[in-house]
Amino acid sequence: FSKNGASSEDISHLRAWNQWQADKCFRPWVVMEAWATYSINEEQGDRTYANRGDISLRRLRFGGSGSPYSWLRYSLQLSMDRIGEDPFASTKGSYQGVDIWNAYMTAKLSPKHDLLNLHVGYFWAQISREYSTVAWTQGSFDRTRANWYLRKFLTGKGNGIESGMALGGQKNMNGFGFSYRVGTFEPTQSMEAQHPARLYTSHLIFSLGDLEQDSYKYRLRGNDWGKRKGISLGLGASSQAAGMSNDSVCFDSSYAWGMDILFCYSGFRLDGEYFKLKRTAEGYGHFNGKEWHIRFAYNLMLGHEFFEPVLTYDRFEGSGSKSVYNYVGDDHTLDVGVNWYLNKERFKLSVHYLVQEGSVASNTGDYLGLGFQWKL
Amino acid sequence: FSKNGASSEDISHLRAWNQWQADKCFRPWVVMEAWATYSINEEQGDRTYANRGDISLRRLRFGGSGSPYSWLRYSLQLSMDRIGEDPFASTKGSYQGVDIWNAYMTAKLSPKHDLLNLHVGYFWAQISREYSTVAWTQGSFDRTRANWYLRKFLTGKGNGIESGMALGGQKNMNGFGFSYRVGTFEPTQSMEAQHPARLYTSHLIFSLGDLEQDSYKYRLRGNDWGKRKGISLGLGASSQAAGMSNDSVCFDSSYAWGMDILFCYSGFRLDGEYFKLKRTAEGYGHFNGKEWHIRFAYNLMLGHEFFEPVLTYDRFEGSGSKSVYNYVGDDHTLDVGVNWYLNKERFKLSVHYLVQEGSVASNTGDYLGLGFQWKL
Amino acid sequence: FSKNGASSEDISHLRAWNQWQADKCFRPWVVMEAWATYSINEEQGDRTYANRGDISLRRLRFGGSGSPYSWLRYSLQLSMDRIGEDPFASTKGSYQGVDIWNAYMTAKLSPKHDLLNLHVGYFWAQISREYSTVAWTQGSFDRTRANWYLRKFLTGKGNGIESGMALGGQKNMNGFGFSYRVGTFEPTQSMEAQHPARLYTSHLIFSLGDLEQDSYKYRLRGNDWGKRKGISLGLGASSQAAGMSNDSVCFDSSYAWGMDILFCYSGFRLDGEYFKLKRTAEGYGHFNGKEWHIRFAYNLMLGHEFFEPVLTYDRFEGSGSKSVYNYVGDDHTLDVGVNWYLNKERFKLSVHYLVQEGSVASNTGDYLGLGFQWKL
Repeated sequence: FSKNGASSEDISHLRAWNQWQADKCFRPWVVMEAWATYSINEEQGDRTYANRGDISLRRLRFGGSGSPYSWLRYSLQLSMDRIGEDPFASTKGSYQGVDIWNAYMTAKLSPKHDLLNLHVGYFWAQISREYSTVAWTQGSFDRTRANWYLRKFLTGKGNGIESGMALGGQKNMNGFGFSYRVGTFEPTQSMEAQHPARLYTSHLIFSLGDLEQDSYKYRLRGNDWGKRKGISLGLGASSQAAGMSNDSVCFDSSYAWGMDILFCYSGFRLDGEYFKLKRTAEGYGHFNGKEWHIRFAYNLMLGHEFFEPVLTYDRFEGSGSKSVYNYVGDDHTLDVGVNWYLNKERFKLSVHYLVQEGSVASNTGDYLGLGFQWKL
Repeated sequence: FSKNGASSEDISHLRAWNQWQADKCFRPWVVMEAWATYSINEEQGDRTYANRGDISLRRLRFGGSGSPYSWLRYSLQLSMDRIGEDPFASTKGSYQGVDIWNAYMTAKLSPKHDLLNLHVGYFWAQISREYSTVAWTQGSFDRTRANWYLRKFLTGKGNGIESGMALGGQKNMNGFGFSYRVGTFEPTQSMEAQHPARLYTSHLIFSLGDLEQDSYKYRLRGNDWGKRKGISLGLGASSQAAGMSNDSVCFDSSYAWGMDILFCYSGFRLDGEYFKLKRTAEGYGHFNGKEWHIRFAYNLMLGHEFFEPVLTYDRFEGSGSKSVYNYVGDDHTLDVGVNWYLNKERFKLSVHYLVQEGSVASNTGDYLGLGFQWKL
Repeated sequence: FSKNGASSEDISHLRAWNQWQADKCFRPWVVMEAWATYSINEEQGDRTYANRGDISLRRLRFGGSGSPYSWLRYSLQLSMDRIGEDPFASTKGSYQGVDIWNAYMTAKLSPKHDLLNLHVGYFWAQISREYSTVAWTQGSFDRTRANWYLRKFLTGKGNGIESGMALGGQKNMNGFGFSYRVGTFEPTQSMEAQHPARLYTSHLIFSLGDLEQDSYKYRLRGNDWGKRKGISLGLGASSQAAGMSNDSVCFDSSYAWGMDILFCYSGFRLDGEYFKLKRTAEGYGHFNGKEWHIRFAYNLMLGHEFFEPVLTYDRFEGSGSKSVYNYVGDDHTLDVGVNWYLNKERFKLSVHYLVQEGSVASNTGDYLGLGFQWKL
């Protein structure tokens, strides 16, 4: 090889570019998160529901991921979340059939550093930490409900996933680093003939101390397994061009902006976020919302296992005309519980108690939840 | 290792508990069962349908199973059953889209014996042999229709699958054994704000002679490939708390109970079951039903292949107020046919003729069916 | 082995027949084809739509294929096509949820030659070249819209897939060859109690020069990567017994017939087809349609990569009573673009511009499209 003047490094780079990676191109993906809950004091209007136990699969995913080329990764997941969930329980949401969860590709555009990655497909229109953190190692029993309103506000969907594209990357200097994710998405629910309703998103995170991610990924992790000493500060914002607010009324502008924080120190973990939501429709006034949460967690390490007590409080408030805007009212949850990780995110057992209240939520009873999750 | 006093057996047991089994954690699952049928004398009310041929995929499943830990197994299946089925043919049922079939986990709680296994997820609320036998090696062209009414009665679904949990196990002594499965499930169709409609199920089987299962599994097999000499006697029962019978009427109690039998001797196989169904709604009287079947099969062994003539008769009867209860009337089927197994359940070819009659069934014409099944 | 008189060839043949092929029985199947489009001048009735960009997954498939026995192959695919597609863009079609795409088996009935293959399941009721060519290496941005009308006419579905069975095979002599595919299918949409509406299809292809397929496959490939010098001439026809034309009117007969051509020479490729569609309902007159296209492509080979400029024009016309027949009017498209193949069909990048017009189409604006496809 040395004869034609190309170094072995050059050649390996050429190989990487167009070489099919047969051994890495498909890895099956299965996650099962079973919930056993006991709901208390659930009410709907004047009716008090009977307290009840319920067993369901809160998260059930099936699909695959892989890296067909050295610079290309993909993820494809079907969702069968909430199969078996009792509609009269205090847990929110319901089974929606077999549906696509995500399907997107990531191209690493800069071979030598981590500053430029392109994401294309059906994925998260994220602007906040809670929005972009994978569910498997989050401390609370479920993602905060408050963040659900942010995701719904941006994309019209509870999971905050839409079709679009994004750029992202990170740079780490000695004890300081930053990462960014900027994207543009197309929320189907706001589209209309005259209004493409394009959504722009951005999330910028500054870090001090240990790195938050060794290599750039679009999504963030929850638990750092007691390793990180550092702080991360995030700024997020979104802007959407005019689109439909409901079937008949068009909004003129829609914004969300806020900040999030994460502080980690030898197993202690504090995270929180505060975001504002604003939408304006001429002649119908403004919608003003805010969503925030704060979460305290501590990791007790027992051999290779982790025992994590967690306390979380989250709150959403929205005001405006009910005839034009959804989610006018409030919703808040207090979650206290412990998680036990046998093989990190591959095996998680949780016991939590949730106190829910609010005027816009459909299920506001309290419940005791036992969760069991394993994943491939 | 011997220094610290732990024997290698202890250590392997410790390893088993929290060790991820990378080589066993995922196995793909595909089954295709194609049917070619010719329907005769199908009628609906006054209309006589044209006789017709039909090709469809009676069973089409896709998913995976595995054992992420030595004590944990799972199964996840999507169903696309009956794709291509002609709604005017004499075959019962219709395509329901891509749907979840089952998704459940089994934890072996007792490492040294087989007496305590926990099942959690979305699976069979079984109380009878026909209910719990896997379809791949059942002798008749399809499961008995009579048992369909039992599954529907318990869960509101034709496949008898719901979310819940169960315990099961078996014990084998010299020439005698027993197995049990007790569970609690949450049938969505009966739920209401005041009525969680919890369902309790139990199935107890006593065996004489050869064992029915070498190691405990939640479900039973059909064909024993001529190996077993023995008899199994099963007792099953279910009880459901108050729930909705239809959209407006609530039942007060709901029970099913009965027994099943299996006799195997050197390739000869006789199985049957008899179950009673009872539901009561105050002011609307009782629903009384019964479902039973009897099946004769014989395995001719030709080298490694099996040639199996089978005769089956099944019958359902239900009485009560039609305004409150479904399935008031009768339904019976005579099925005569032969199956040929090339690689046991991995490859099955069948020819059967079915004579159907009944006042509650939607398709009661006769049909000749040719079936071909292969599975991973 | 030689002792019992069987040659090793005989034995390997015996082994092949009933031997499970564990290493070949499952191969995962993932395809992602992302589209970024910009739609221009889209109108609907009096309304002019805003020009708009759109990102979607034109094709998203997940499933598996394999060969459980030497003579048996299968394919099973789920489709999540068009997820994220803007309904107000000029691209045709819309997301239909997670659905089954195909599921069929192929049995090679003749071990020594390629003349007799049986296909059973849910697959293409093909009668033309464009109908039966796999999408991954077709030159135009998408299959021709004209052929969509043929597929819809035959099966009532845009993908032209229905349940049925077919026989196919090929024979190659020195410089001359032929292949055939004849099938019978059961289009659900035309079925009625008195009318099974059975569909018969046939497609016969004669080849001169190099072979079109080394070994018989039910479907045809697009790009031949500059290797073939030859010409193929196809004749196709379908006939359907009486069935429903719409909810209330029954047609008496339905036919389609036509021819297709393919000419390849050292990277140059010309293909086209012309098919007529005819349906008759007593008292409502005839439906007469025709669909045709012509496509010019040239492969520039750059090392192992292919750069392919393509020009395509297609046209559909239909006449008859609008109260009984769908698709009365016309629809035509001009597509000019280039494709770049990195690893043949495993990696394709396309830029095309499409000019659309027509009275029966729902989206007739122009658009610029950028496509990226990779597949396992």
